[in-house]
Amino acid sequence: MSKSTRGIYFEDFEVGVTFVHPTPRTLTSGDVSFYIAATGSRFALSSSNTFATRLGYDAAPIDDVLAFHMAFGQTVQLSLNSVANLGYAECRFLKNLYPGDTMTATSKIIGVKQTSSGKTGIVYFRCRAVDQSGDPVVEFVRWEMIRKRHEGSPAPKTVIPHLSQAVEPKDLPSDRLGDWRDYDYQLAGSPHAWEDYELGERIDHIDGMTLEEAEHVMITRLYQNTSKLHVNQFTAATERFGRRLVYGGHVISIARALTFNGLQNAQSLLAINGGVHCAPCFAGDTVFAWSEVLGKDELPGRSDVGALRLRLVAAKERFCDDFPYKNDDGSYADGVILDLDYWAAVPRRQ
Amino acid sequence: MSKSTRGIYFEDFEVGVTFVHPTPRTLTSGDVSFYIAATGSRFALSSSNTFATRLGYDAAPIDDVLAFHMAFGQTVQLSLNSVANLGYAECRFLKNLYPGDTMTATSKIIGVKQTSSGKTGIVYFRCRAVDQSGDPVVEFVRWEMIRKRHEGSPAPKTVIPHLSQAVEPKDLPSDRLGDWRDYDYQLAGSPHAWEDYELGERIDHIDGMTLEEAEHVMITRLYQNTSKLHVNQFTAATERFGRRLVYGGHVISIARALTFNGLQNAQSLLAINGGVHCAPCFAGDTVFAWSEVLGKDELPGRSDVGALRLRLVAAKERFCDDFPYKNDDGSYADGVILDLDYWAAVPRRQ
Amino acid sequence: MSKSTRGIYFEDFEVGVTFVHPTPRTLTSGDVSFYIAATGSRFALSSSNTFATRLGYDAAPIDDVLAFHMAFGQTVQLSLNSVANLGYAECRFLKNLYPGDTMTATSKIIGVKQTSSGKTGIVYFRCRAVDQSGDPVVEFVRWEMIRKRHEGSPAPKTVIPHLSQAVEPKDLPSDRLGDWRDYDYQLAGSPHAWEDYELGERIDHIDGMTLEEAEHVMITRLYQNTSKLHVNQFTAATERFGRRLVYGGHVISIARALTFNGLQNAQSLLAINGGVHCAPCFAGDTVFAWSEVLGKDELPGRSDVGALRLRLVAAKERFCDDFPYKNDDGSYADGVILDLDYWAAVPRRQ
Repeated sequence: MSKSTRGIYFEDFEVGVTFVHPTPRTLTSGDVSFYIAATGSRFALSSSNTFATRLGYDAAPIDDVLAFHMAFGQTVQLSLNSVANLGYAECRFLKNLYPGDTMTATSKIIGVKQTSSGKTGIVYFRCRAVDQSGDPVVEFVRWEMIRKRHEGSPAPKTVIPHLSQAVEPKDLPSDRLGDWRDYDYQLAGSPHAWEDYELGERIDHIDGMTLEEAEHVMITRLYQNTSKLHVNQFTAATERFGRRLVYGGHVISIARALTFNGLQNAQSLLAINGGVHCAPCFAGDTVFAWSEVLGKDELPGRSDVGALRLRLVAAKERFCDDFPYKNDDGSYADGVILDLDYWAAVPRRQ
Repeated sequence: MSKSTRGIYFEDFEVGVTFVHPTPRTLTSGDVSFYIAATGSRFALSSSNTFATRLGYDAAPIDDVLAFHMAFGQTVQLSLNSVANLGYAECRFLKNLYPGDTMTATSKIIGVKQTSSGKTGIVYFRCRAVDQSGDPVVEFVRWEMIRKRHEGSPAPKTVIPHLSQAVEPKDLPSDRLGDWRDYDYQLAGSPHAWEDYELGERIDHIDGMTLEEAEHVMITRLYQNTSKLHVNQFTAATERFGRRLVYGGHVISIARALTFNGLQNAQSLLAINGGVHCAPCFAGDTVFAWSEVLGKDELPGRSDVGALRLRLVAAKERFCDDFPYKNDDGSYADGVILDLDYWAAVPRRQ
Repeated sequence: MSKSTRGIYFEDFEVGVTFVHPTPRTLTSGDVSFYIAATGSRFALSSSNTFATRLGYDAAPIDDVLAFHMAFGQTVQLSLNSVANLGYAECRFLKNLYPGDTMTATSKIIGVKQTSSGKTGIVYFRCRAVDQSGDPVVEFVRWEMIRKRHEGSPAPKTVIPHLSQAVEPKDLPSDRLGDWRDYDYQLAGSPHAWEDYELGERIDHIDGMTLEEAEHVMITRLYQNTSKLHVNQFTAATERFGRRLVYGGHVISIARALTFNGLQNAQSLLAINGGVHCAPCFAGDTVFAWSEVLGKDELPGRSDVGALRLRLVAAKERFCDDFPYKNDDGSYADGVILDLDYWAAVPRRQ
C-alpha cells in the first residue's frame, strides 16, 4: 500500500460518512500577527486586548475569518482533486477562539451529484470545527466539483442537501459576543452604530490592496492549506491559468479587511450565508471592495448589538465607486471576483 | 453621511486639536518574530529573554523601532492625503513594552503652514502613545505636507512649533533601562563599550539588505499602516513613481538592523532627534548603512550605561565604505535615502 | 580598531578553540507561525497542543528543524567568508524546546585542512546549542570551505575529525519523546506505524512547493542568519550565480514538510547522520521530494516508538516519481538539490 496519496476522487465520497481531518491546529498570537501582515486588518476587537476586555472578552478573540480559514485548511485534505470551489452556505461562528486554543475539523458528506460530463461530480460537505473542549467553534457547508477516478464509474444516487438561503436572525449565534454597552466608537474608528445603516445602503470601501505571490502563498500555508493550485508553480504552469491561483479565502480576508473603511464597527462575523468566487485572482492584482446592506435585524435578547446582513463584493483592477456587480444576463461584471453574503454584529447606540 | 472616508485635508487641521486614533494595538511575540524576519535584527536585548532578564528587564522588551512603527501606524489615519513625510523630531522612548502590552496613540496638531503653491500645507503633529496603564511609551513630532481639499480655501494663520535640534542628554529617558552592570559583551556580539566610541568616529556597517515587495508591504501592514502609497499598486501606477514606495520607517528599521555590525551594544534607542527620508526606496533596492558618532554623554545617575548620539545614513545600490552623505551644495549625495539622528544607550565598562 | 567586521578567515581558526555566539534567541509562537507559513509543515506534534499533551509533552514542541536553524543561524557568524557549506554529521536532537525557551550556541573548531588551491581551507565545527537551563538541545558537526585572508599564509597542521557515518541507534536521544502509546493516527493523518515501513521502501511525496524570494529571505532572517549569500542581491549580482542563493537549511525544511505526504507519523527527528546540498536552489524553483527507508531499529527501552533511518532526496523542477538520485559515475542526477540522511521517531503499534 502506497504511503503517500494523490487524494481521493468523486467515487470515494459516500453520503453520510464523516471524515476526521488532520492536523489539529493550535492558534497563536503568531498567527494573528501574520494575518494582520497579510491582510492589513484593523478591526479593534481582534487587534487589541484592551478594547476586547472592556467588552467582556477574555482577550482579543481570533479574527473570525482567520478561524474560518484554519478550519477550511484542514478540510482541504478532501479537495486534492477538486476542479472548482463552488460555494459556501450556512456558516456560523459559534464560539470565540483565543490564542492557545486548538481547532480540530470534521467533514460530513451530505450530498453528491455526478455532472453531465461524466468526468466530475459535485460533493457537499458539512464541516465542523471544535476547540480543545469539544465545543463547536465554526461550522459551514461547502461544495466542490471533484474529479472522478474513472470516467466509466457508475454515477451514485444524487443527493442534494436542502440549504437555507441565509441563516435566520433567530439562529445567529450571539451568545459569544461580550457586553457591547460600553463600546468605544472612537477607538474603533467610526461613530456609526447599527441604527445608522439603512437597508439598501451601499458603501464604497475606497482603498485597494495589491497581492504579491509570496503573500498569498505564505498565508495559505499558514492555514496548512497546501493545495497545489496555490503553492505549486511547476504544475500550475501546465494547467488552465498557467499560474498559481490565490486561495479564494484570502480574497475574502482582503475584502473583509478593506471593509474597515466604512464598516469599522462590524467587528464580528455571525454567519456567512453564501459566497461565490466569481473569477480567479492572481498575484499582482489589486483588490477593491464595496458593501450593500441586505438586512438589519435585532439579535435575540440583545439591546447592545444588532445584526447587519451585508453583501460584500470584491473586484480587481478597478475601483468600486460604481458598485460593480452583475450584468443584465445575471453573469458577474468584468473584474468582480467575490460575492459574499454575511451577517455581522454591529453595536447599538445606548 | 458617507460611511467611508478618503481622509481629511489640510483645511481640517486646527492647531490645538487632539485626535484619538483607532486602532489600539496589542503587541505580541508574533509581531516580534515578523519584525526579525522582515529586518534581520539581531540585537540581543530584544531577541533574548535570558539576555534581558539578566539586565533586570521582565523579558525581552519590544524593539524600540518596532514600537515606534506601531504608534506611527495608528497616526497614518491623518496622512491619507499626504504628499510627503517631511520630518521627525523630539522622539523619546519612555517606557518598555513587552509582548501583551497594548498601545493607543493620539496626535495633537501643533502647527500649520500653507505652502506657496496654495495646493498643500504643512501640518505638525505631536504624537503620543500610551500603554494599557495610560503610561506614555513613545512620543514624537512629525510633519507632513498635506493636500488641500480646495485650492481656493483661505490659508490658516501660520503656526510653526519650536522644535529642539536634539533631545538634551538630561532629558533622555534612562529610567526604563534595566541594570546593565552585568552586561554580557560576548553574547551581545561585540566587546566595544561606550568608552570605546569617539566623537566623529565613522563606522561602515558593511552588510547590505535587499528589499522585496512582499516584505515591505507585509511589515507595513503589520503596523496597520495601510497608506495607499505602500500597499496599492493600482493607484501607484498612475502616480509619480509608478510603483509602491517603501514605507520610510521600514528603511529606518533595515538601516538600524544593519548597524548591528559595529554597534551591537547600542541596544536601546533613547531618542530620535531628527530624520529625513532623502530619496524614495523601492522593492529590489539593496540598502547599506554607515554611522557617525555625533555626541557622547553620561546619562543622569547612571554609571552602567551611557548615551551615544549617532547619525545613521542609509544608501541604496552602493556600498557605504566611502561614507556617502551630502554634496557641496548641501543636497544629499546620490543614493542616500535616510539621514537619521538619534541617541542610543550603550553599556559602560565596569 | 574597526568596530564592524567582514568576518574571520581560514587563518583565524585554531583547533580546540570554542566560540560563544551572539545572539541568544528566545523562540516563540511567532516563530512557529512563521515557520508554518514559510514551509507548509503539517506535522501534528508541532502544530497542536492537544496532540502533544496527549502524548505527555508540555505543549507542542518547537519543530526540530526550526530549532536546528535557530542554532545554525547563530553559528553563521563564523561563515561570513565561506565559499561552500560542505556537510553535516552527528546531529542529535537532545531536548524539546517550547515557545519561551532561549537557545545559545557555541562552536568548537575540531578540524582544519588547507585545500590544494592554497586559497581556501576546510574548517570543521562542532556546534552545540543549550537552553536557558544550560541543557543541551541540539548538537551537530558542520564543515565549510572558508577563504584565506592571504594566499601566502602557511597551511596549518591538518586535523580531520573522526566522524561517524551515522548515529548509532543506541545513541539516539529518545528520552525527550513523550509517551506515544495513545497515539492518534487519524489526527496525525496516516495509519502507518513503524511496523509498516520496510527496509528499502521508497516513497514519492508527490507534492511540490515553489519558493519565492521574499519567502526564503524572510525565513532565513528569522533565524538571524544574515549571510550575504541569501539576503544581499547587490553583491550576489556580481558573484557566481548572479542571484541570491536559498539557504540550504530552508531546502531541508521544505523537503521535510513535503514528507508529510507519506511520513505523517515521522513526527520527530532524532538525529541527522549526514547531508549534502548537491546543487543550488533559487527563488522560482519548485521543490519535490522522495524518501527511502535506510534503517529500522528499536529505541532502547521504548515499545511505543521506533526509529526509521531515512534518506530524504529533494529535487527541483521535476517530479520525484522516478526517485532521482545519482548517476552511474556517483555524481548527483540533474535537478537533485538535497541528499539528507536522518533518523526519525515513528509510533509503534500497541
